[in-house]
Amino acid sequence: MSEPVTTNYVGRDLPRLEGRAKVNGAASYIYNLRLPQMLHAKLHRSSVAHGRIVRIDTSAALALPGVHAVMTAQDLLDLIPDPYFGPAFHDQPILALGKVRYIGEPVAAVLASDPHVAEEAAALIEVHYEELPAVFDEVQAMSSDALVHEELRPAGTFPDLKHLKGRRGTNLALDFRLRRGDVDQGFAQADHVFEHRFKVQPVMHVPLEPMVSLAEPEGDGVLIHSATQMPSFVRLEIARLLGWSENRVRVKTALLGGGFGAKVYIKLEALATALALLVRRPVRVALTMQEQFFHITNHAATLRIKSGVTKDGRLLARQCEVWWNGGAYADIGPRIAQKSGFTAAGPYFIDHVSIDSYAMYTHLPPAGAMRGFGVPQLVWAYESHMDMIARALQIDPLALRERNILREGMEHATGTVMRDTAIDQVLAELRKRMDWDQPVQRGQAVVRRGRGLAIGVKASISPTTSVAMINVSADGSATLYCNTVDMGQGSNTALSQVAAQVLGIAIDKLRVVSPDTAVTPFDMGTLGSRSTFHMGHAVRLAAEHARQQLAALAQELGLPADTALPDLFRRKYGMSAGNVVGTGTYTSPYAPVDPSDGTSKNITPNWMIGGTGVEVEVDTETGQFVVTRLVSVADAGQVINPGIVATQLSGAAIMALGGTLTEEMIYSDGQLRNGSLAFYKIPGTHDIPAVMENAAVESAQSNGPFGAKGVGESASFAVAPAIANAIEDAVGVRLTELPLTAEAVLRALRQAQGLDLAKD
Amino acid sequence: MSEPVTTNYVGRDLPRLEGRAKVNGAASYIYNLRLPQMLHAKLHRSSVAHGRIVRIDTSAALALPGVHAVMTAQDLLDLIPDPYFGPAFHDQPILALGKVRYIGEPVAAVLASDPHVAEEAAALIEVHYEELPAVFDEVQAMSSDALVHEELRPAGTFPDLKHLKGRRGTNLALDFRLRRGDVDQGFAQADHVFEHRFKVQPVMHVPLEPMVSLAEPEGDGVLIHSATQMPSFVRLEIARLLGWSENRVRVKTALLGGGFGAKVYIKLEALATALALLVRRPVRVALTMQEQFFHITNHAATLRIKSGVTKDGRLLARQCEVWWNGGAYADIGPRIAQKSGFTAAGPYFIDHVSIDSYAMYTHLPPAGAMRGFGVPQLVWAYESHMDMIARALQIDPLALRERNILREGMEHATGTVMRDTAIDQVLAELRKRMDWDQPVQRGQAVVRRGRGLAIGVKASISPTTSVAMINVSADGSATLYCNTVDMGQGSNTALSQVAAQVLGIAIDKLRVVSPDTAVTPFDMGTLGSRSTFHMGHAVRLAAEHARQQLAALAQELGLPADTALPDLFRRKYGMSAGNVVGTGTYTSPYAPVDPSDGTSKNITPNWMIGGTGVEVEVDTETGQFVVTRLVSVADAGQVINPGIVATQLSGAAIMALGGTLTEEMIYSDGQLRNGSLAFYKIPGTHDIPAVMENAAVESAQSNGPFGAKGVGESASFAVAPAIANAIEDAVGVRLTELPLTAEAVLRALRQAQGLDLAKD
Repeated sequence: MSEPVTTNYVGRDLPRLEGRAKVNGAASYIYNLRLPQMLHAKLHRSSVAHGRIVRIDTSAALALPGVHAVMTAQDLLDLIPDPYFGPAFHDQPILALGKVRYIGEPVAAVLASDPHVAEEAAALIEVHYEELPAVFDEVQAMSSDALVHEELRPAGTFPDLKHLKGRRGTNLALDFRLRRGDVDQGFAQADHVFEHRFKVQPVMHVPLEPMVSLAEPEGDGVLIHSATQMPSFVRLEIARLLGWSENRVRVKTALLGGGFGAKVYIKLEALATALALLVRRPVRVALTMQEQFFHITNHAATLRIKSGVTKDGRLLARQCEVWWNGGAYADIGPRIAQKSGFTAAGPYFIDHVSIDSYAMYTHLPPAGAMRGFGVPQLVWAYESHMDMIARALQIDPLALRERNILREGMEHATGTVMRDTAIDQVLAELRKRMDWDQPVQRGQAVVRRGRGLAIGVKASISPTTSVAMINVSADGSATLYCNTVDMGQGSNTALSQVAAQVLGIAIDKLRVVSPDTAVTPFDMGTLGSRSTFHMGHAVRLAAEHARQQLAALAQELGLPADTALPDLFRRKYGMSAGNVVGTGTYTSPYAPVDPSDGTSKNITPNWMIGGTGVEVEVDTETGQFVVTRLVSVADAGQVINPGIVATQLSGAAIMALGGTLTEEMIYSDGQLRNGSLAFYKIPGTHDIPAVMENAAVESAQSNGPFGAKGVGESASFAVAPAIANAIEDAVGVRLTELPLTAEAVLRALRQAQGLDLAKD
Repeated sequence: MSEPVTTNYVGRDLPRLEGRAKVNGAASYIYNLRLPQMLHAKLHRSSVAHGRIVRIDTSAALALPGVHAVMTAQDLLDLIPDPYFGPAFHDQPILALGKVRYIGEPVAAVLASDPHVAEEAAALIEVHYEELPAVFDEVQAMSSDALVHEELRPAGTFPDLKHLKGRRGTNLALDFRLRRGDVDQGFAQADHVFEHRFKVQPVMHVPLEPMVSLAEPEGDGVLIHSATQMPSFVRLEIARLLGWSENRVRVKTALLGGGFGAKVYIKLEALATALALLVRRPVRVALTMQEQFFHITNHAATLRIKSGVTKDGRLLARQCEVWWNGGAYADIGPRIAQKSGFTAAGPYFIDHVSIDSYAMYTHLPPAGAMRGFGVPQLVWAYESHMDMIARALQIDPLALRERNILREGMEHATGTVMRDTAIDQVLAELRKRMDWDQPVQRGQAVVRRGRGLAIGVKASISPTTSVAMINVSADGSATLYCNTVDMGQGSNTALSQVAAQVLGIAIDKLRVVSPDTAVTPFDMGTLGSRSTFHMGHAVRLAAEHARQQLAALAQELGLPADTALPDLFRRKYGMSAGNVVGTGTYTSPYAPVDPSDGTSKNITPNWMIGGTGVEVEVDTETGQFVVTRLVSVADAGQVINPGIVATQLSGAAIMALGGTLTEEMIYSDGQLRNGSLAFYKIPGTHDIPAVMENAAVESAQSNGPFGAKGVGESASFAVAPAIANAIEDAVGVRLTELPLTAEAVLRALRQAQGLDLAKD
């Protein structure tokens, strides 16, 4: 407490705590972990999109020298009689059981000490299928007879899914409805009604550390080492599958080589656990980069949006329909349909709103959470739509937004009153940085210039809980225990800044323990940009709790409040002994959703707001275009660490750039045609705009820890519509499907000129 | 809280939690741990007892294929400029530096991937010494010119050793004095004055899992896996050596294959750490059973005891002098001299007491803590002495004791008032179980029978601190975090009984995390039978703290107090989320020692009391004798787990039997002649008395957790004098030196008959 250094860490641009270890190679990742006596599991995958499994012939695989075992779903049933997992629905089998539902689904696992032997043997397995009709499109899935599941099996943990239990004959996993006012009345009152349809392609998260789980029997329990964003959830779900108490399941993680939502909830952990418990040896299930395409994707989506507007550009009514392509297993898709559904009408004040958000099953790989949790798809639609309206009404698109945005104290479509939402400031900052009041130098030659912007908002996931512990040792050093996973977002550094500042100790005296459910307390998960806010609160409370105890100790001993900690402990215990343990628990406030109209008086403890401005150059002869400037502006509340916020903004923007311009999983009848980074192009150094700017507007989240809120997703929301808007600004053509390619621009240019590209 | 099972675990004879894993081989020990990229370290040891190191030639060792590195003390100095460690004195070099001080002292370490290569290379190292005079006897060391250390270097952590700093020209590490009344006056008033001299031989702890430490660099810190009884202390001491903050040092341990004091404070950890940090790879330093003889032993001792007694057997005055043979490095020896010194006059009320207890340096392997912490040596002397007085006064030895014992409320020699000390009950139980009121059937033939008893008391180590944490998960399961090391004494089971009872949960819902200083909070150490009392308190407090929070949660939610825990959490957090963390800290009360006379109003929070009764059969022709019956009686307060108490009593008694009858480290000029279990005999199955009984008298430690206290050492105190007393009872000869051998009995018998064995 009397450290001679300043301990005002919050707001300082400290380097990452783990930076040096990452650079010199000392940082450890689960993917690199090898355990004694470990077996590698390699998977045989379904070759049909929908089919009944008639017979699995494992004899050739078993005959291969070095193969330890071959396991199918049947082998797991003694250990796990009901081997279906998932956070929202218990629909996903650990290995395909009876049926397969997408091409690439795991059907059998081969175990061997040598991973190459396991891989070779996996290819020798022969599976005979009775093929069944399949459906791949999210809109067609609504009416198709090709049913992905015979019966819906919602998990008990989400009360609002319970009514779906046992529902049969549908591919609709969840239908979220929001109704405010009367959209028909709104459309009737409007001077103009606009309706557009948009599409978002399937993409993959591409964490550079592929998904990996190792499990090993540990006494009468199991220890799971997993590259997961949610150790607490994995423990719960594995305990449920096994019928064990939670504390027989131990989940450890480490630094992650990226997550982006690919590693939330439960993925490979159930398979690794089942195999390890069956063979009583450590088992490693690690995907190759190629295999990741078969395990989790974003949600492809079709969006229909219709707005009624006055002639001076005031939004009166908006109707949205969103079809989410959830693939064969629900994962967290229904939650995306609901949570993102809330905000489908955008950051605008509109009297009459109607939203229908459909979580659909299809015969594609499962879709789940991905940075933005559905919001980028919505923003793509509503912010393209806004520019199309502005253009039709000949109103400046920024002015149109300013006229309609939700301002402090206004009521969001859900009924939640907006608090601490600097939407206006984000727009103002974009106006300034984009020199919006200056005309664009469009150019007169083949290449034309244009600019565009867009803005989106996202609610945080709520109600959720974070718990933190801080243990102060007798020498005045301290250890922070929390389940927030540092997957590159710098959480260890930011949370340490909070803890050290509150404790009043030097930050190099504080260490963070990697998540280990035997040690680190509960946290809902590292996702949805929730950690700075939720875990930041818990860490602050834990540090305050420790500090109060230290102050009480000083008082008890009659010592000044600023007594050095080592002296305090020595006086208390007669030697360097003892600890002070502080704990903090934070649960976000929340008001339940009214199932009749989808409203809630409090859907989120804080709002994330992100806007993007871009400048483009479009070659009118080839359709080639270049994003020459990209400005990301976010409301980050009070910033804990400016450097980390800046890299989160640029990281999210570049990721969104990939999903806007080059990334697309291309299917033919459910068969992925480009499942490799050779054919699936993520942004490289040369794809980054020449000018990139990141800005956090001055604001404060009044209910946040030190006024802070999360910012990991904000810069991903608005990239795609900003670019599409800029392209139209440059060359007058409108693209409504992602990705935005040169070919699509050229087709649109030719179409606008009355030409057909195919005939050209 | 509403578990349908009874949770009254305290007092129940539950099987050991770790029992199954130990039987089926699943239990893991540090000795079996192998780390990736690990190097084995093997030691080259001194061949002289005292000498200056002139030159170390490592060339042949380095030339051996497969040798990674050879390290001497010089190589460590950049990392650790002052490489001397120790709990009481900073006197022990990590590797011999400049001088060697005993035969077997580590001089150099060879590192290789193959331990056999390392061992072979270690033998190829040549060290040239300039030999110096040496002293081996603890009494001679007092006046010898052969100085072990030029200057005393007390550690700063024990304030009462500070005055010794810089003292030169002495082998006396500590002189503890206790003065009460005036012994000369007491002797003058006495009807009889008796004076006897006793000796205790050097013995080794023989943990069946030999001492082992592995260290590995971990980020900017170090992770030490060590078979240690004191992870918290190791962390402190390694941090001090490296000049690091504590939380850069992480110490993990596991189940120990026995400790008995051999694994307290710091042993191999500094060497393993230094080597690992120098080569930046994991390093394993593991002793063979033979090598353990060179690292730590008990304290051999010479004891002089003089008592003034009235003719009816009342003790008026007692003077004790004890010379402790501490070997070349102090380890915790000075503390033994002091803490045991307190009780050198025995469990008797005596007006006039004078105690001098000398911790001596000699040129033998370092001596340290061993089960009983010096008390068995003292009891050997004072309880032999008591029987010799009884015989001289023709008073029944049990009656003599009963006349003099300290009873509740009386003042111990230190000035501490006796509380909760069932000394009288232990004697009464021995009287009953030994059928003391019946005459002995001595026999008339060659073999004669006799019986003997003895009793001892020990203070607990104080003031010391224990901290515990309990984390209750949302499914109602819980985890206990504490640094108490389960080394066979059943602490995990007993502490779980306390925690589960206080929490009111089923014990199989509770798990104990192995000590890991990054995780488990501070504890002084697992030694001195302190854990049941100190950690028991801390665990109880932690569980109460958790329970209070759960009760407050129920009240906050308006739920009944007995709401099932999973329901409570689900109601609070809307899902299975959150934790309740309870912490508890216990520090034993203590009054400082007056340095002028060694008194203290409160030297211990509780007393351990152990009595032993034996029956022997002695062959008068050969001196061979057999202990036919051994009864251990202890005051265990309220027993937490009767089965564990019984095995602690029998285990301690059998260990003491070895130290009484067969175990002895035999030296010639400092060279150990029997450093192998082939020549150093520990008790086997056939050495166990045909009849063994263990009894805990009905009592309660009113300030103990659930009235409990520790009992791990109590049955070790009195075995040796009980047997010597029984031998005299059987055949009329008195042995005053340990071990008690057939040869010694035969010599004494011949001497009593006026015969000389050598001439026979």
